[in-house]
Amino acid sequence: MHDAALRVDGFPCTFATAEDFFFGGLAKAADVYSGSPMGSAVTAADVGTLPGLNTLGVSMARTDYAPWGGVNPPHSHPRATEILFVLDGTLEVGFVVAASRLLGRTVSRGEVFVFPRGLVHLERSVGAAPAVAVSAFDSQLPGTQAAAAALFGAAPAVPTDVLARAFRTDAGVVETIKSKFAPN
Amino acid sequence: MHDAALRVDGFPCTFATAEDFFFGGLAKAADVYSGSPMGSAVTAADVGTLPGLNTLGVSMARTDYAPWGGVNPPHSHPRATEILFVLDGTLEVGFVVAASRLLGRTVSRGEVFVFPRGLVHLERSVGAAPAVAVSAFDSQLPGTQAAAAALFGAAPAVPTDVLARAFRTDAGVVETIKSKFAPN
Amino acid sequence: MHDAALRVDGFPCTFATAEDFFFGGLAKAADVYSGSPMGSAVTAADVGTLPGLNTLGVSMARTDYAPWGGVNPPHSHPRATEILFVLDGTLEVGFVVAASRLLGRTVSRGEVFVFPRGLVHLERSVGAAPAVAVSAFDSQLPGTQAAAAALFGAAPAVPTDVLARAFRTDAGVVETIKSKFAPN
Amino acid sequence: MHDAALRVDGFPCTFATAEDFFFGGLAKAADVYSGSPMGSAVTAADVGTLPGLNTLGVSMARTDYAPWGGVNPPHSHPRATEILFVLDGTLEVGFVVAASRLLGRTVSRGEVFVFPRGLVHLERSVGAAPAVAVSAFDSQLPGTQAAAAALFGAAPAVPTDVLARAFRTDAGVVETIKSKFAPN
Amino acid sequence: MHDAALRVDGFPCTFATAEDFFFGGLAKAADVYSGSPMGSAVTAADVGTLPGLNTLGVSMARTDYAPWGGVNPPHSHPRATEILFVLDGTLEVGFVVAASRLLGRTVSRGEVFVFPRGLVHLERSVGAAPAVAVSAFDSQLPGTQAAAAALFGAAPAVPTDVLARAFRTDAGVVETIKSKFAPN
Amino acid sequence: MHDAALRVDGFPCTFATAEDFFFGGLAKAADVYSGSPMGSAVTAADVGTLPGLNTLGVSMARTDYAPWGGVNPPHSHPRATEILFVLDGTLEVGFVVAASRLLGRTVSRGEVFVFPRGLVHLERSVGAAPAVAVSAFDSQLPGTQAAAAALFGAAPAVPTDVLARAFRTDAGVVETIKSKFAPN
Repeated sequence: MHDAALRVDGFPCTFATAEDFFFGGLAKAADVYSGSPMGSAVTAADVGTLPGLNTLGVSMARTDYAPWGGVNPPHSHPRATEILFVLDGTLEVGFVVAASRLLGRTVSRGEVFVFPRGLVHLERSVGAAPAVAVSAFDSQLPGTQAAAAALFGAAPAVPTDVLARAFRTDAGVVETIKSKFAPN
Repeated sequence: MHDAALRVDGFPCTFATAEDFFFGGLAKAADVYSGSPMGSAVTAADVGTLPGLNTLGVSMARTDYAPWGGVNPPHSHPRATEILFVLDGTLEVGFVVAASRLLGRTVSRGEVFVFPRGLVHLERSVGAAPAVAVSAFDSQLPGTQAAAAALFGAAPAVPTDVLARAFRTDAGVVETIKSKFAPN
Repeated sequence: MHDAALRVDGFPCTFATAEDFFFGGLAKAADVYSGSPMGSAVTAADVGTLPGLNTLGVSMARTDYAPWGGVNPPHSHPRATEILFVLDGTLEVGFVVAASRLLGRTVSRGEVFVFPRGLVHLERSVGAAPAVAVSAFDSQLPGTQAAAAALFGAAPAVPTDVLARAFRTDAGVVETIKSKFAPN
Repeated sequence: MHDAALRVDGFPCTFATAEDFFFGGLAKAADVYSGSPMGSAVTAADVGTLPGLNTLGVSMARTDYAPWGGVNPPHSHPRATEILFVLDGTLEVGFVVAASRLLGRTVSRGEVFVFPRGLVHLERSVGAAPAVAVSAFDSQLPGTQAAAAALFGAAPAVPTDVLARAFRTDAGVVETIKSKFAPN
Repeated sequence: MHDAALRVDGFPCTFATAEDFFFGGLAKAADVYSGSPMGSAVTAADVGTLPGLNTLGVSMARTDYAPWGGVNPPHSHPRATEILFVLDGTLEVGFVVAASRLLGRTVSRGEVFVFPRGLVHLERSVGAAPAVAVSAFDSQLPGTQAAAAALFGAAPAVPTDVLARAFRTDAGVVETIKSKFAPN
Repeated sequence: MHDAALRVDGFPCTFATAEDFFFGGLAKAADVYSGSPMGSAVTAADVGTLPGLNTLGVSMARTDYAPWGGVNPPHSHPRATEILFVLDGTLEVGFVVAASRLLGRTVSRGEVFVFPRGLVHLERSVGAAPAVAVSAFDSQLPGTQAAAAALFGAAPAVPTDVLARAFRTDAGVVETIKSKFAPN
């Protein structure tokens, strides 16, 4: 269907039908119980799943949160600002600015919060109902980097003494945390 | 609260609190009955209402549609691509590409559709329930230009003979349409 | 002559000679009588005809207008601002800003007017001489969308009831206009 | 007329009328005889004279050339590509690419040539008629740097020994050239 | 000296002298012993100290590392890629890509390594000599976010249970780490 | 090692190892005696030698200068601003702004100077020690154009009469300079 020989930025650039501009994958809640130790799950609608986005500078994602504290753990998007809309439930959200100042608040159904480009941010569900958010990004492929997994779960490993010094703790604590991220 | 003397791109650039990155105005349905002859209403979450967006290249909007055919009439955003997420109900959507080809489809709750930068597009609700969409844009101030109002409702007026020729009709038809857009 | 295997943004990127940076196609007046019901014709000098423009963010076009009211009907460029220079004759020009305000004036030989990015604009010749304009764009491929043709001549068609509601008229008027854009 | 307190990118950003998007200064030929030792003169239509261009990424200029070899001497635009349209007469044009290869040709009335961003280029009129070109740039303020004047006419002066070494000549030749650029 | 009323992007934009394009503050080694628990210190040459950089999209920084393991702890630059040049000594460096894969190696005097935009990276000195690096960024103000300090030293605090869950540890460990970042 | 079929902007985009983000070629001094009539030599660390830079908007270069006046002759980078850090020795540096005003000064070991995008600039070593600089650019491929070589050494040649007029000298001087740039 796509002309494989004609690519722009590495993605196909001949779009034949409306289907290239459509994505149905955000309609269903993701499994936040069995799949994620955090109680959250992200489904992306970026250029990988929505080829019509190529060169257009925008994408979306849906995040599902388990009730009573499902967490989208501290992470950042290396190539985009995020604007988050709460679809259901209530979230506590925040981002850290350079001087280690947390800007955050509670955001309820229908409300919007912004996480500026590249800064660490997090969300946690509040209350008995599952929460759902729809986020948009000013990039067709914003990327995501979860801070704890990047630091303690990387392979090859970030050296233990670097982490101990950075986190002002000892090697034993670092090794214990690392072991929780280890593949089985 | 903001330092009035320090502006970036014409907007204040000293943000003191999380409130600068928060907007609650998309939580409520707009009145699509008394206020709009189209049966639709748009509420923007752009740099005008969300000052923290300044320089960040993204914004959002909520559109409410009356049931049974509430229309967001053909329009374009001069500075942004739009990615639309259906919050409730079902929409028929589409955009026209340069060679007057309409790419469109039905989009239901939870589904996503993309309107590329600057192209005319439209949405219409289907069925007995009101519809709601949340859209995002890759601009802090995407702008909106409704085609019919821009052409037939502008002041000063676009000349009647230009519109007659462009729409391949006569002056009487143009004048009649113009009169419907006239201020009372 | 070009290395077909090396493409940037989908266009060839190995340019061997000055010819890649030259285009002679704007030198001749286009036929504005037999070819166009509007009395105008546009010839593009964009990356499609001038391959050296690739990645360079600029392009040109020539527009010829029949005397006594040749019209370049209301249209927009989805990816560029236009700056227009009148080569010959006199034009009435204008663009519509978001709040349906027309900014326009008469522009004569040697004068310049700007149509900001993505906004609907139009030109009409004044007087007994043919008019000619040379325009430049801040995109190697600005695109053009003629409003009336996009709305009433699209295939598949924009639904008649949407157009009737948008233009505040009835289905009969819409169908009549549509029929004028139909292919023979 | 403009709100002096509201500036975007250092230029006023409240535009009230169509005049902000209009410039008449390119309509008249510049004096290429008494004013310029080169036999050429450039008139700019950039954000300095056309305030509506602010943030819009495009500008224009008109260049007049005396007949029989009026020269726009080797120069570059630090922030833009140039696309040149010959309004009248014939020009020999060219630009130098990094490896000191000149790409050039003769360009006649109505023809177009491109000088890529930041590269040294030049134009010279051919024949008995004055020549005129209209150029466009992908910047609201492209800037211009004439190579000989920048090197030999700068104040304070570029050191003579640097120029002698760069131009592979001696101090006497450099001093002689410098003296021709000196203010009276 | 600067015209306070004329600002571009919030910074003064009238530069009078070469001093606006000069910065001497990278010439001296920073104190990496008394000032930093990490054994490293960063000195920035960005638009804050080098006003001529405004709108120019580039900046620099010098990092000093104590011998035997001085660490620039895991951090990211929200608005820039970093290219690092080793001035003295030897560093172990690396960055984590999205899927928690560490790309790293040893980099010695005169060698170069790249940390792509927004990704967490780190450097550690190797051997008995102090190390020094000079880095450049494709932003006039790249920003820096140290991961551990952002997460465990923010004020107000990132909730303990969020961190415990993200780092797969318990509240006691989190509280202990937090206490090390607390202001005295 | 790279997937030859997947390219972004014409460069390979599948990077497998840290080596794609590493370059060792700036560690050694270049030969500034036998290779260069100017007494200087530039070694680039751009996307051509550092494939991981692709799409990342930054690059570096090392310049070596012979003692007692080694010159990096007047040149410009068509696509980037340069920020220069003096690694060793002392340099006299400067750039010319549009109105032929030279902004320059002496820059010593550890100090920084900025050459704005596209403007002609130069450096000359001062004193008995060789000088070395490390420069960064806000482009993955900034390009370089040496003014004298571009003007007097281009092939085909820039016409002698154009150069004579531009440099306000006679054909004999131009021909003599040209002969020095001629290939043997």
